[in-house]
This record gives sequence, structure tokens and C-alpha cells, in this order.
Amino acid sequence: MKNTDIEFMREAIRLSIENISDKGGPFGAVIVKDGEIIAKGTNRVTSSIDPTAHAEIVAIREAAKKFNNFNLSGCTIYTSCEPCPMCLSAIYWARIDRVFYGNTKIDAKKIGFDDSFIYDEIKLPIEKRSVKTTQLLRDEAIKGFKKWEEIEDKTDY
Amino acid sequence: MKNTDIEFMREAIRLSIENISDKGGPFGAVIVKDGEIIAKGTNRVTSSIDPTAHAEIVAIREAAKKFNNFNLSGCTIYTSCEPCPMCLSAIYWARIDRVFYGNTKIDAKKIGFDDSFIYDEIKLPIEKRSVKTTQLLRDEAIKGFKKWEEIEDKTDY
Repeated sequence: MKNTDIEFMREAIRLSIENISDKGGPFGAVIVKDGEIIAKGTNRVTSSIDPTAHAEIVAIREAAKKFNNFNLSGCTIYTSCEPCPMCLSAIYWARIDRVFYGNTKIDAKKIGFDDSFIYDEIKLPIEKRSVKTTQLLRDEAIKGFKKWEEIEDKTDY
Repeated sequence: MKNTDIEFMREAIRLSIENISDKGGPFGAVIVKDGEIIAKGTNRVTSSIDPTAHAEIVAIREAAKKFNNFNLSGCTIYTSCEPCPMCLSAIYWARIDRVFYGNTKIDAKKIGFDDSFIYDEIKLPIEKRSVKTTQLLRDEAIKGFKKWEEIEDKTDY
């Protein structure tokens, strides 16, 4: 851990606290590349009316836009709270290298956020999850995947 | 399962196939409330340069905007592929009631998408995940959560 890690985490925490006064949830994140903050995010779920607008997602979308690249390899994310499964998965999809976090999913649970519950749900087999989930028309859906395999000039990611 | 479920799933599949010709990945989703499609989404990761722009996320953001509500209780999502952990978590955060899916995460893996890998990673304890993850400054971060608890007129979700 370097002094700069502490600095960047303090900025994420500062954003999380500032966001409360700005009608948002108590979450902030910054994305850093080559020692510089390239994107910041705060939780905008209620203010943007977007259930996906967690601090990390907002920061990832901004960083990708800024770099004109959906692949954020070489970046580190500093987030005031352990990423929920949505944000953690987005971190994988974005190919971010490293994660620093402050509060835990248990801390989040204690103030009323579902992070911990969703972690538990994802681990369950589909038929045991609280969201009723049914497979349908796989024989038709697979045609899209077959067509994708046949394309030669596609952009993999 | 009703005939309408089949119809809605066919529309999600149709979108997934159409999206390939539109430079997107082979994924489509529709969100239905009271027997009507209220939002549609396709995978726009490469075309929108947004690693979070999976079909389900795009549809959820559109539905929330349309209803002016981040809570999509009473809605069903039909998606051409089993939701990845990012999208499944977004489904929980959005309070969507039901999920129908076509292809599986293993089908997605076979054509080069990381859905299955990310499911495996999320189940691991933090220290065993391939993304190096470190807790930092929890004693400072918790101040944001304490401030949140003290607010009386906050919007819970």
C-alpha cells in the first residue's frame, strides 16, 4: 500500500459523504490510471432514477467514455464500500486490475442496503433464488449464439 | 407458462439476433408490466463503449426512466441469455419479480463471454479472487454510513 492509495481512498470517502448532502446514497468511488484520477462516481440511484447507478458503475461508465475504450485494464478502483455483486461484476467486465474498498457488505447491510443479501442469492442454484427464474425457448435463443460464432469481423470483449 | 411468455421471449431473441447485424453482442431483453412491453435492451458494450451496457441493464435503465421510478416491482424480464451476475444483481436492485431466460451461462462461455467465470469468482472469498482486493481506511469510510443513519428524510431503496 502506498501513500497515494490512502489519498485516493480518502477522495472516494469524501465523495461518499458529500453525496449524502446531494440527495444520494453514502457511496463514492474513483478510478485511477498511472497515478491520476480519471473518473469519479457517486450513488445516483434515487436522484437519477436509475437502479444501476451505483458509485462504481457511474465511475466505470465515465472512465470508459473518457478513454473511448470499454476495456479499463491498468486501472485501479477505490470505493468507499465493498462493491456489491453488480459492481464487482462490472469491475470484471471492465478488466479493472485492482480494488480498494472501505466499508464492508455487512456494514452496508446494517444501514439497510441489500449487498449482502444479493451475494447470498447469487450463490444459490437458480431454482432456490427468491426471484422466480424459468428457462424458455433455448432451442430458439441458441440461434443467436450460432450466428455470432459465424461472424468473422466481430469485436470480442 | 403462458402463450404471452413465449411471445415476449421470442421478442428478446429477435432483438438478440438483430443486434448482431447492428454491431452488438448476441443478447436481447424486454421488460413487461401488465402484459405490455415497457422497455427493450440489447448489448451495446462495444457500440456505446460502455462495459455495463448489457441488454438487461439497458432495458432496466429505460424502464426506470419511463416509469419515473427506480423500483420496478410488478415487472418481468425476458432475456435471451441467463443474466450474468451484474445483470442478475441489477434485477434484484430493481425489484423485478420474475425472470425468463433462453441460453445458459455455459452457452455464453462457449462463445467467449465471461458470465460463468464471473459467477465462479463472486462465490470465492475476497482473498481468493483474481482481482486483487484490499480493505483500506474502514474507520474513515464508516463515517459516511453513520451520517446516512442520522438523516431523517432520506429515500430508502
